[in-house]
Amino acid sequence: MIPEPALRRLPWYLAYVGILRERNVEYVSSTQISRELKVDASQIAKDLSFLDIKGKTRIGYEVRLLEHKLEEFLGFKRQHRAVIVGAGSLGGALMQDSGLTRYGLEIVAGFDNDARLAGTRKHGLPVYDSSEIVERCREMQIGIGIITVPVEHAQSVADRLIEGGVKAIWNFTPIRISTPEDVVISNTSIYAHLAVMYNRMKG
Amino acid sequence: MIPEPALRRLPWYLAYVGILRERNVEYVSSTQISRELKVDASQIAKDLSFLDIKGKTRIGYEVRLLEHKLEEFLGFKRQHRAVIVGAGSLGGALMQDSGLTRYGLEIVAGFDNDARLAGTRKHGLPVYDSSEIVERCREMQIGIGIITVPVEHAQSVADRLIEGGVKAIWNFTPIRISTPEDVVISNTSIYAHLAVMYNRMKG
Repeated sequence: MIPEPALRRLPWYLAYVGILRERNVEYVSSTQISRELKVDASQIAKDLSFLDIKGKTRIGYEVRLLEHKLEEFLGFKRQHRAVIVGAGSLGGALMQDSGLTRYGLEIVAGFDNDARLAGTRKHGLPVYDSSEIVERCREMQIGIGIITVPVEHAQSVADRLIEGGVKAIWNFTPIRISTPEDVVISNTSIYAHLAVMYNRMKG
Repeated sequence: MIPEPALRRLPWYLAYVGILRERNVEYVSSTQISRELKVDASQIAKDLSFLDIKGKTRIGYEVRLLEHKLEEFLGFKRQHRAVIVGAGSLGGALMQDSGLTRYGLEIVAGFDNDARLAGTRKHGLPVYDSSEIVERCREMQIGIGIITVPVEHAQSVADRLIEGGVKAIWNFTPIRISTPEDVVISNTSIYAHLAVMYNRMKG
């Protein structure tokens, strides 16, 4: 299994390779990627060894093939069905981010416990009452639950998503959530990033 | 200076302490926080030692005071002026996320190189043409530049933001950006999080 730090670097390579493809560049070596992204060239070769691709001596990797293999390996080539719980400011924002589709995330519905939102549509997607999470997720065969509710509701929402059969939770709240071992949890606390930024700016 | 891992844990404590305050709990010990957040209690005490607050033996920390000190330390108490470059799907989404204000981020304008967007308002904020980044940032005394443009424009946008005087770049693109040493760079690649999630779900 690929180690997480390597996995996190692959999207950098993908982004760079996409730029090269748009410029009609045909081949790229790990040395070139290294120069551009400031990652050690041997590290890059090692990271890419997890993919089913071989570079040619002195020429490097075929740009289009590398892009394809990276997208495939990263799971961006197929759609993963997801719901968002908490259709307020951040949740609503994510529902309208069409960029997510390009990275394999298909958001099919939102949930909210605000009675005024339930039953409406937001950016073309239906918004249901949060009390319907379990049955709706089962019915729609949802794999990923995205949580953008206030922190105090995060754990109970996660519990219901898991009861509804989701295999992964993408937690945007700044609170930690407990999940069974077979459920993947990914924390994206954008506010923690802000804190780090402010703190370093002081210096 | 506080190490980054410690800094990243502080928002968890803040979120939990906020819940306790809403429940009218008056004191909390690091053992309690530890149980709830699954962080070692001695680690918590160490992390909180960077704050100007003392826990009382056997009682712990005063909840309201701890919340206040955490918010203050994390920089959430004062507003940091920011602009967003790339007022498309993710950028537009962030412009409407009012939650950011609560964490000290005041987005005052957006930029886009789409002539149809420039000159309009989005979620109440003015959108300017990207050619005006340098002068507008200087004029508005912007401290933080948020980048949500396509990857191929990320570096040139960063260069202009820095010329405009920003002290920190919040990069939402999956490409790495080079900045002078005195400019803070924070990478939030939400798509990399997706890749990690998909990959682990396979197993």
